[in-house]
Amino acid sequence: MPAGGPNGVETATGQRYIAGAGLLSRLLTPGASRMASPTKDQIIDQLRIVKDPELHKDLVTLNMIKHVAVCDGQVKVHVELTTPACPLKDTIRRDVTEAVSRLPGVRQVELEFSAAVRANRQTASQLPGVKNVVAIGAGKGGVGKSTAAVLLAVGLRRAGARVGLMDADVYGPSIPTLMGIPHARPSVSGNNIVPIQAYDLSVISIGFMVDPDKALIWRGPMVHGVIKQFLDQVEWGELDYLIVDLPPGTGDVPLTLAQSIPMTGAAVICTPQEVALVDARRAVRMYQQLNVPCLGIIENMSYYVCP
Amino acid sequence: MPAGGPNGVETATGQRYIAGAGLLSRLLTPGASRMASPTKDQIIDQLRIVKDPELHKDLVTLNMIKHVAVCDGQVKVHVELTTPACPLKDTIRRDVTEAVSRLPGVRQVELEFSAAVRANRQTASQLPGVKNVVAIGAGKGGVGKSTAAVLLAVGLRRAGARVGLMDADVYGPSIPTLMGIPHARPSVSGNNIVPIQAYDLSVISIGFMVDPDKALIWRGPMVHGVIKQFLDQVEWGELDYLIVDLPPGTGDVPLTLAQSIPMTGAAVICTPQEVALVDARRAVRMYQQLNVPCLGIIENMSYYVCP
Repeated sequence: MPAGGPNGVETATGQRYIAGAGLLSRLLTPGASRMASPTKDQIIDQLRIVKDPELHKDLVTLNMIKHVAVCDGQVKVHVELTTPACPLKDTIRRDVTEAVSRLPGVRQVELEFSAAVRANRQTASQLPGVKNVVAIGAGKGGVGKSTAAVLLAVGLRRAGARVGLMDADVYGPSIPTLMGIPHARPSVSGNNIVPIQAYDLSVISIGFMVDPDKALIWRGPMVHGVIKQFLDQVEWGELDYLIVDLPPGTGDVPLTLAQSIPMTGAAVICTPQEVALVDARRAVRMYQQLNVPCLGIIENMSYYVCP
Repeated sequence: MPAGGPNGVETATGQRYIAGAGLLSRLLTPGASRMASPTKDQIIDQLRIVKDPELHKDLVTLNMIKHVAVCDGQVKVHVELTTPACPLKDTIRRDVTEAVSRLPGVRQVELEFSAAVRANRQTASQLPGVKNVVAIGAGKGGVGKSTAAVLLAVGLRRAGARVGLMDADVYGPSIPTLMGIPHARPSVSGNNIVPIQAYDLSVISIGFMVDPDKALIWRGPMVHGVIKQFLDQVEWGELDYLIVDLPPGTGDVPLTLAQSIPMTGAAVICTPQEVALVDARRAVRMYQQLNVPCLGIIENMSYYVCP
């Protein structure tokens, strides 16, 4: 089971940091040790000058400061991030430490991080336990889409999020091979399908259900049906992120997904060849037309030079 | 216009070969110069011992000897191959020269080659001018399928065949980019579409018809419609080979193709990674299920080692 309490506060993985800045200022200003500790409100006021580097609003307004404690010049601040994989954690830690240390009487600043992944509001009604659906798409095949999806899922899981991985590439399901579980078979519970647990991820793929040597010669409407089933009948449970590995191109699968559930966003994988870029452009246009925010483009194999 | 007369006899590209074997035997056997030349029938009889290296029947039975002429010890043999790209041309040339030279009185053997590509009998009724339809498929994308299709088409054209190239990868049409004609626009003649001429090939692609920056968010039945139109409404003219670049996977396009026209065969492209082989296996199974002969597998990028 993924770690995390009912609010997603992950004390088990919470990181602590003890800054020496307060100590240094005390040594430089004799008599500082006799100063009274600042009050909790003073600290919170001070935190109003610390802005989230991405959202450009202060941490207090953003409701990211969950708890402040102060005792004999030792300050503890609990910051709640919107994702455990926040790439700006270190910047926030530095800014908070710096700002709080400036208050007279502060000897030590200790930070605790947790994360409460916010749900894409609309997703909630369709996939009740799933907070965010992120599609990994590519115009062209063979650019490393499935690899990127697996790495993203495993990375988010390692950061502490609860993650599911759905292989929507029904004609060429690569996830079972890439995850090293080509012979896994999901069990059935009532009308529902229980996903495979691998690397602490919940994984589903059509590759688990058909003979690896059998071709899936399916027309679009059958593909549509499989994707609907993956969304409706798989017991995903509580997930912070459901990563969906799309097939290459702009056909039935992305269309069905976009029409069935509001996606938090999509990432497009491409390689730096013109023939891949043409298709990547089409994929970006598709997401724009389907009103799915394009979270970014991952350029894969950038440093590969033909031998 | 592709070269070749009404019977596909390509005198313009016919290759000639003058063997010295007869001359040598004359020097070694004095008095041979006074020998009478063999008759045409004697030469044809001699050719009955030359077998086609692939079909394992003699050239006379296979009706490949179109003309024999003899004059003063000089013999001319006209061999008609089933494809101008015959990889066994040199073997046939050597065997014929050797066999004919053995006859007394032969001073010189000259060979002329032509090719009359035989039509897949069933194709004729559906695509009247097209003798063979060859699909280039792949389970997985990014393995070099489109590149293989272009190289095969250009290679067959250079060998003298009349070749068309159909880009059936409607979601990711790479052929316009690979052929260097991304901005070409086919013209319309009555109800029909006139394919683009490039490198002396007739080329059609959905990429010629839509804005390169526009996504084709099409469900299966629309894709089916495009493929049917490419078969029914494009003025292919007289073709020895129509090379079809399929999209990756086993979806609507190969199914529509296989159900619309009897394909001469299909080649599957793959790379030596397990994740590509799994999909290649599925593709081979698909062709077997659709009764399309699998002509072979091209292993691409075999010598690539990750840096």
